[in-house]
Amino acid sequence: MAGEAASALGLSLAVLAERPDDAACAVAAEVLPGSPLVEAEFRALAERCRVVTFDHEQVDLDIVATLVAEGHPIYPGVPTLELAVDKARMRAALVAAGVAVPAHLVIEPGPGVDAGSAIAEFGAVHGWPLVLKTARGGYDGKGVWTIGSEAEAREVIAPLSGTLLVEELVALDAELAVMVARRPSGETVAWPAVETAQVGGVCREVLIPGRLPADVTEAAGILGRQVADIAGAVGVLAVELFWSKGRLLVNEIAARPHNSGHWTIEGAVTSQFENHLRAVLDLPLGSTSAAHSQVASVNIFGGDDGGNPRDLLASGLSHVGAHVHLYGKEAKPGRKLGHVTVCGDNAEEVREQAWSAALALGTPHPVGLPLPDGLQHKGEFPS
Amino acid sequence: MAGEAASALGLSLAVLAERPDDAACAVAAEVLPGSPLVEAEFRALAERCRVVTFDHEQVDLDIVATLVAEGHPIYPGVPTLELAVDKARMRAALVAAGVAVPAHLVIEPGPGVDAGSAIAEFGAVHGWPLVLKTARGGYDGKGVWTIGSEAEAREVIAPLSGTLLVEELVALDAELAVMVARRPSGETVAWPAVETAQVGGVCREVLIPGRLPADVTEAAGILGRQVADIAGAVGVLAVELFWSKGRLLVNEIAARPHNSGHWTIEGAVTSQFENHLRAVLDLPLGSTSAAHSQVASVNIFGGDDGGNPRDLLASGLSHVGAHVHLYGKEAKPGRKLGHVTVCGDNAEEVREQAWSAALALGTPHPVGLPLPDGLQHKGEFPS
Repeated sequence: MAGEAASALGLSLAVLAERPDDAACAVAAEVLPGSPLVEAEFRALAERCRVVTFDHEQVDLDIVATLVAEGHPIYPGVPTLELAVDKARMRAALVAAGVAVPAHLVIEPGPGVDAGSAIAEFGAVHGWPLVLKTARGGYDGKGVWTIGSEAEAREVIAPLSGTLLVEELVALDAELAVMVARRPSGETVAWPAVETAQVGGVCREVLIPGRLPADVTEAAGILGRQVADIAGAVGVLAVELFWSKGRLLVNEIAARPHNSGHWTIEGAVTSQFENHLRAVLDLPLGSTSAAHSQVASVNIFGGDDGGNPRDLLASGLSHVGAHVHLYGKEAKPGRKLGHVTVCGDNAEEVREQAWSAALALGTPHPVGLPLPDGLQHKGEFPS
Repeated sequence: MAGEAASALGLSLAVLAERPDDAACAVAAEVLPGSPLVEAEFRALAERCRVVTFDHEQVDLDIVATLVAEGHPIYPGVPTLELAVDKARMRAALVAAGVAVPAHLVIEPGPGVDAGSAIAEFGAVHGWPLVLKTARGGYDGKGVWTIGSEAEAREVIAPLSGTLLVEELVALDAELAVMVARRPSGETVAWPAVETAQVGGVCREVLIPGRLPADVTEAAGILGRQVADIAGAVGVLAVELFWSKGRLLVNEIAARPHNSGHWTIEGAVTSQFENHLRAVLDLPLGSTSAAHSQVASVNIFGGDDGGNPRDLLASGLSHVGAHVHLYGKEAKPGRKLGHVTVCGDNAEEVREQAWSAALALGTPHPVGLPLPDGLQHKGEFPS
């Protein structure tokens, strides 16, 4: 999707890809084979480009630092990536800046450290169940566990190495996300905060503006910009928030275009992808205003039957007004394969239309999330 | 821009390109070197693709017919292309179907044909100046002349071969265009008709809905769908219309995404590019409703100074809310290099904002078209 935005602006995109069938290769002017984890391959990209940016966080910070020291502009930079790749460091930076986050404990592995006992102590204070996360490498619910007892904790952590983050299971009234774009100068804009629905740690739908009162979503926007400043972000940054007992808590950040901002392609004046490119190129940022009063965006996943939504495209497109995005990926159960956005002026209607099209494209039923009235589904969401 | 729409739908685009630096190559999953005028090269594309379509009309109808006979789906098909590549045949088909067109005369070259005298006779009846066009090969004002006398006509036609079209110089009250999308089944949808401003045969701005009353733009939409039926179009078809003395006359057609439909990318629910792809793939068509009450789209051309708008991107993007599209082409004086679209709810404001951004991107002054109040320009439009 960043490639589509690059094309519109007449920018030439080169992609560093480990596999030539990576979806991003299809829209890139140039494909360099390689991995950002191999210094020479990353350097070849940096030497080819005016600026380098990322669509994931699986980067080696030492390599990035080396290339930046050589004079290659790489955004987001090392200080931001350090927070984005490590939930423990991110939490520490937010706490240091006075930002509210869930109660948590960082457990560094080492000789004499009994992580099981530390988790048990945390549970005794903050209650069970609690949430256990690996500080690095998790996404879309991977690397995250809900733990009911010390015994369960010991079982889960046995095969793990690396830093652990233990946190209270926050009583959620809602989940929100804010997308922010920030230039090297610090100029920062935020799109309207959105309400997200996660099932099993995976975002299933995004509603704009969602059900929360305007003062809460506005506060979320301010908080989002504050977090982008703390992180020293350049490009777009996603801030995922909990709304719990009248408080906004920062859950996670992602220093890149993010699923909770896909609605901006049609729903906002400027998309997150375009503003990401503008920001990393230090170009003026576009308006982040919503272009419609109500927007709903529903993700499409692979079902247990292995079907690909591209084979159901005619069915999905029969829903007039549905903006269908397919990512050109091979279908696997539970893999995110696309999304559908509907814009309008009635919250229930846009949600119903987006789900109708997403179900027509074969996305399985979201266990734990009620569907709009009258909609039928085929399979259950893969566990 | 069709490549961007293909990417969004997860479609894989292969491009047949004579030059590897063709702008379309940058967003294509696959580039085949070659020309549609070379049968083997066109066949290589057809064998690679589920369906073949065009972004220009420089095709060899015999090759298309051969490949269609071999079973390759190619849209638009030969009957539509025959009209699109030949203004004389297009006029004849419209007249036969009872569609109003400017008074005109077709002059086929041949032994004993005195084209100069034929033009003089036409001028004596319909008045001078008159308009002379080559039936094939013209676009953007090329292959079109305004002729004041028989002597001038003889001078212009001396180096020409091929069929000529002579027509009355219509007293224009306005120019309109209608974009239509049509599936193989004949299902047809039209976007709202737009008002266009042409200077020297080149479209400079597109205003939606423009200044004409709703009954005129609605009649234009009906006429557009009728023309698409007459042409047997599959894909999108542009119909350019004259509004003169209370009548709508069909001027030209183009059987492809067209400049007068670029506004649909942000201004309509579904863009012309997406519906073109849907139509040629026989997928359900998306809504053609306008997404905003007022839209203005202004073209960006190369000036005499040889500057490229990409070097002025920061300046253009400083106009918040302006959607800047650059085509990645090398700059040449008078060459169309991009466009800017602004959506809103005030006709004067969106036009002023679109022109402001286009001028910031270096487009030269449109001689013969008044700029919005207060705007400054640099160079004159190349002659």
